[in-house]
Amino acid sequence: MSDEADCVFCRIAAGQIPSMKILEDGQSIAFLDINPLAEGHVLLIPKDHFETLDEMSPDLVAAVTAHLPLLVAAVTRVAGAEGCNVLQNNGRASGQAVPHVHFHVIPRRSGDALGYRWPAGSYATGRAEQVHAALKQAVGGPM
Amino acid sequence: MSDEADCVFCRIAAGQIPSMKILEDGQSIAFLDINPLAEGHVLLIPKDHFETLDEMSPDLVAAVTAHLPLLVAAVTRVAGAEGCNVLQNNGRASGQAVPHVHFHVIPRRSGDALGYRWPAGSYATGRAEQVHAALKQAVGGPM
Repeated sequence: MSDEADCVFCRIAAGQIPSMKILEDGQSIAFLDINPLAEGHVLLIPKDHFETLDEMSPDLVAAVTAHLPLLVAAVTRVAGAEGCNVLQNNGRASGQAVPHVHFHVIPRRSGDALGYRWPAGSYATGRAEQVHAALKQAVGGPM
Repeated sequence: MSDEADCVFCRIAAGQIPSMKILEDGQSIAFLDINPLAEGHVLLIPKDHFETLDEMSPDLVAAVTAHLPLLVAAVTRVAGAEGCNVLQNNGRASGQAVPHVHFHVIPRRSGDALGYRWPAGSYATGRAEQVHAALKQAVGGPM
């Protein structure tokens, strides 16, 4: 499905746009983000075109994300970071800029520039149970 | 390895602390975050205890993340959201609050409360090539 002529990540996967590859296999490729949040910021993508994660099969997501332990370790160590974030955005409202699934692996240090608002709340009485029931139904599980 | 007596996620996985489970299999469990960023915010964890993703085997990461397509679809739909973020933090500097690997699945809407600073930069001439070479060496790939 890497025939999305206008997709920059499809063109990177196809070798039509140069990239600094970190690793590659039949399903996936990881390369340096050239507009990094910090030195060592890497992107991991499926080679085929999917706009959001829910369009991918579980097996393909598994094949791609199996690279994350190695990438997390490598990015953190090479960047001399204290940790890292793995971030994958689905939809423009979530911050997704390129509509081809990608996992950011972002090195982090205490007090660095990246950060997020985290205004955690709580559920009104009974509301969590309603949301829970709806989610269970949505995933079709037996519970 | 779910014997980390002080780990709240190990205790949830073991059923010692109640949770609102969305799905569960031999390796993983997903449940409602009771301090959500938005209604429908879900956490997906491995049942066994690993502090950060790089401590997990590729196969186990794959088994856990194979649930993400279904969860992304369910969370987005049930929350009536426009999209969602998948976020996994490694280390305190990255924002990790509970030292047991967890993937946040967070419903998002345009202009909602969650957001992150994204001060993307660029590499000085020649620096990207140095970082690239170090990362390739770190992952041990043939490229």
